[in-house]
Amino acid sequence: MTGIKVHGSVISTAAQRVFACLYEKDIDFELVPVDMAAGEHKSEAFLAKNPFGQVPAFEQGDLNLFESRAITQYIAEKYADKGTALTCPSKTVPMLLVWKEAEAHQFDPLASKLNWELVFKPMFGMTTDPAAVEELEAKLAKVLDVYEARLSKSKFLACDCFTLADMHHLPNITLLMGTQVKKHFDCRPHVCAWVANITARPAWAKVLALQSKK
Amino acid sequence: MTGIKVHGSVISTAAQRVFACLYEKDIDFELVPVDMAAGEHKSEAFLAKNPFGQVPAFEQGDLNLFESRAITQYIAEKYADKGTALTCPSKTVPMLLVWKEAEAHQFDPLASKLNWELVFKPMFGMTTDPAAVEELEAKLAKVLDVYEARLSKSKFLACDCFTLADMHHLPNITLLMGTQVKKHFDCRPHVCAWVANITARPAWAKVLALQSKK
Repeated sequence: MTGIKVHGSVISTAAQRVFACLYEKDIDFELVPVDMAAGEHKSEAFLAKNPFGQVPAFEQGDLNLFESRAITQYIAEKYADKGTALTCPSKTVPMLLVWKEAEAHQFDPLASKLNWELVFKPMFGMTTDPAAVEELEAKLAKVLDVYEARLSKSKFLACDCFTLADMHHLPNITLLMGTQVKKHFDCRPHVCAWVANITARPAWAKVLALQSKK
Repeated sequence: MTGIKVHGSVISTAAQRVFACLYEKDIDFELVPVDMAAGEHKSEAFLAKNPFGQVPAFEQGDLNLFESRAITQYIAEKYADKGTALTCPSKTVPMLLVWKEAEAHQFDPLASKLNWELVFKPMFGMTTDPAAVEELEAKLAKVLDVYEARLSKSKFLACDCFTLADMHHLPNITLLMGTQVKKHFDCRPHVCAWVANITARPAWAKVLALQSKK
């Protein structure tokens, strides 16, 4: 047993990033549900695990980590020899650095806001802002043009292997596939093939199955 | 000679992050100015270096890198034995992962937007939105509460050494120090001492001196 606990919600995209990593690495963990509707992520007990009051929080013995992409990097390094590598051959490591940051700073800010407008606002009975959606869609389309060019030269974003850079996209992409934004992925053949490839991973199916167990 | 070229503008906070890293590492580089007012960062020649059309772009022989935090990580790893380490002793590496992400996802989104409202909008003859500033300041104050607690237990964010996690804050913090937001740093003693410490680094003085050479 690894003694790993992940405190989080199965519908949190950030927590899903960590679950995906643990399943790819075939590492045992305990999912400790955090009742966000009841504000449990702002409780003193939770803030001791993540002072920013956000899910997920990662716990392994005395070690408490937060920020989903820090947790996945930690897991990928600590369990380098287990399960899927999630990293690149050494020559292409600089490209892994670049495309992890591209996900975090080019893709995620747009994708997260689109999912907020198109998925979470309706879920919470709030009203979607069509002007915001239009602006975000136009910006995302430009980012996906860059992805299309990249994926026409490389099977995955960083190199020819599935890495953290691809994996980090899964939670937001899966939600976007259920919205009007899907068309921007579908009309770009290399992006479309990449989405089909990464969303079909068995580890990702396990993450989605957590929601039906709920 | 390293053959390193950094394509960028001396007033770009992202480019400044890379300059700071190169000066900390005492590494020669050529600064290739990009005329952003003339839209040079959207030219075909520049897009070949950074497909997202943003400064900086890093070039070393055949290697082209973009995204400032990917570039600094690359430099810190490749030149590990040169100049300031910028990393942690191995036991605290997980904390370096966490605090680099905290800068990128908790601090930077607020600090960048505040600098846009309070520094760049006035510079470009645009009007600051006071309601946006008020909301951002309130959110930043909460983030700085977390920083204050962390810095009361640790000299720097990740460990007792100056690392990339601290360094990445320098461009935005330096701009904020010239605005009304300074008070939120000043009133938190450990944050205030940390700001004084990191902004006083000789490498950072060299970055600021680039602007007066302009």
